[in-house]
Amino acid sequence: MNPDVLIVGGGVMGCACAHRLASSGLRVTLLERALPGAESSAAAAGILGAQSEVSAAGPFLELCLASRQLFPDYVRELEAISGIAIGYESSGVLEVALDPAEGRLAVGRLQWMLDRGLRVEILDRAEALRLEPALAPTLVGASYYPDDHQVDPERLARALATAASRLGCTFMSGVQALGVLREGERVVGLETDRGRLSAGAVLIAGGAWSSRLQGLPPLRTTLKPVAGQIVQLESRPAFFRHIVYGFKGYIVPRRDGRILLGSTLEDRGFDKAVTCDGVHQITGMGMAMVPNLRHARLSQTWSGLRPASGDNLPLLGPSSLPGLFFATGHYRNGILLTPITATVIEALLRGDSPALEIGPFAP
Amino acid sequence: MNPDVLIVGGGVMGCACAHRLASSGLRVTLLERALPGAESSAAAAGILGAQSEVSAAGPFLELCLASRQLFPDYVRELEAISGIAIGYESSGVLEVALDPAEGRLAVGRLQWMLDRGLRVEILDRAEALRLEPALAPTLVGASYYPDDHQVDPERLARALATAASRLGCTFMSGVQALGVLREGERVVGLETDRGRLSAGAVLIAGGAWSSRLQGLPPLRTTLKPVAGQIVQLESRPAFFRHIVYGFKGYIVPRRDGRILLGSTLEDRGFDKAVTCDGVHQITGMGMAMVPNLRHARLSQTWSGLRPASGDNLPLLGPSSLPGLFFATGHYRNGILLTPITATVIEALLRGDSPALEIGPFAP
Repeated sequence: MNPDVLIVGGGVMGCACAHRLASSGLRVTLLERALPGAESSAAAAGILGAQSEVSAAGPFLELCLASRQLFPDYVRELEAISGIAIGYESSGVLEVALDPAEGRLAVGRLQWMLDRGLRVEILDRAEALRLEPALAPTLVGASYYPDDHQVDPERLARALATAASRLGCTFMSGVQALGVLREGERVVGLETDRGRLSAGAVLIAGGAWSSRLQGLPPLRTTLKPVAGQIVQLESRPAFFRHIVYGFKGYIVPRRDGRILLGSTLEDRGFDKAVTCDGVHQITGMGMAMVPNLRHARLSQTWSGLRPASGDNLPLLGPSSLPGLFFATGHYRNGILLTPITATVIEALLRGDSPALEIGPFAP
Repeated sequence: MNPDVLIVGGGVMGCACAHRLASSGLRVTLLERALPGAESSAAAAGILGAQSEVSAAGPFLELCLASRQLFPDYVRELEAISGIAIGYESSGVLEVALDPAEGRLAVGRLQWMLDRGLRVEILDRAEALRLEPALAPTLVGASYYPDDHQVDPERLARALATAASRLGCTFMSGVQALGVLREGERVVGLETDRGRLSAGAVLIAGGAWSSRLQGLPPLRTTLKPVAGQIVQLESRPAFFRHIVYGFKGYIVPRRDGRILLGSTLEDRGFDKAVTCDGVHQITGMGMAMVPNLRHARLSQTWSGLRPASGDNLPLLGPSSLPGLFFATGHYRNGILLTPITATVIEALLRGDSPALEIGPFAP
């Protein structure tokens, strides 16, 4: 029997949609080239930066805030069904200004947050150091976003794949989708490297690789990969607890002693290199904000490919072709936007209206 | 039957001495805590820097030059018996001066080399860039040591262990030497974690760990570990061919596309951490001398523990206790000094006089 929905991509988006759709009774099959979470999903740092990552009020902020609000219950639900702890930590984000110019930029971001009723505090040097003594004593100030937290993306991806699987989603790993199958305008399945698959609907959640599919309609924007490198340090016991966010990068301390430093923004195709310069910049950025990182052990480096659209907004919703939906292009905010994306896609595929405005994200 | 010689340590020194002693007909047993070459030997960069690593004329320079001269035949001999290619490359070293102060220091090193009849050229910026176009175009000049070459230390260690084994040396891996056994003043064997071993003579080649042995006589100097971190990049095809040596570190391009950048000098005990600051400093040093390293892939990082004596000279020769010999403490120059050390130890244990002055290295 053909599935109701064929999903392309086993990252957090594909798996989260598979989980929600399967839980609402649809027959779901998910295609993944390699293994679930093998690409950008597990490479992310996992900052739920609805405030720290957004630059202005508007529909994208609302999408981010709605998703952030879903996280506590979402994590509980996924942990219960998967048995995998996702590492949700109420870290809070400290956005550090290292010089007066950075301080002015930070203050400029304050008004729209206050207008929207979001919690934010502007701290002077002494207040920032009192809240987080590990910060560089030379900083000029910091913005504190007490509601921006973190998860462990690799565990989130595994929990989502496990949850989707437990609810009956069929995973086809090692299968490459090549393009969409149409009957007239209607999309009725996928062409893959293992032959044709038919389905009631197709959902594209293939990240930066989505743009390689044949037969897609004209899109609002092309998708391209933007590489980001991460340097993972280790220091036990953890000597600071806030996510530290700066104008050149971020530092995410995990409770288990891992410390993630990121990241670069590199437009060089599907190349996941960790480079000499990338590691140099990232380690320098980290030590500038938290000097005692200098002694931390370097334990791993990696890079991932963010799916970037031309306008930095996701492709989320129905396409111009009946039967074809998109949930991709989340660029720097895929982990944060996972639960709301799954909620929106579930509503759309059940024929309901999503609870928030998704017009600006139309594919 | 008891061996003629018990060797403590399976690094390049222990294995090279085992190889020479076995080839001259002695029964040799070698004790190694882990596996041959598992520690500093394989962690080294492998610069045969008899000129670039030495700061003045004297017995240490003569030891280095004698060892460098042995290398071509030594490599041929080891490759023939072991079947392992050691990666001996006539790279030459370019010692780069990035500012006028470094340039003056380089010129100051010229005279003793010329007095000793060594080949060295002082290059201005244009000459240096003509010889090695990958160098930073802002350098002020370079010293060229055309006779300082390289080997691959990990392969050298494996070839030596293989060669020693083929000539009949017995390897006891996973055995920890605890101290020397005496009868009166005479050393007659070793106490180990597997019991007592007797032998005609004992040779200490345990690197920084040598100082942990019980029952040693008072030594000229203590031995302590000095950690050095290495960052390995990869770039194919190799885009430069000289070893680049600077006042803050070095770059060693291997023919296979690996590029080793090193190193730190860290006095922090038996701690082989690769740290955030170490990697930052090393990558910055490398890009300052060869800017196009910025795109090279970071493929591996590691650190090793150099065995440092208080006067930076090795402990080489007979000790004050009959039957106890030393071949350790080679600090930054263990790979370079491997063949001459084995030659000296062979002469001593056969009762001959070494062909060069080793008085300053007396344990």
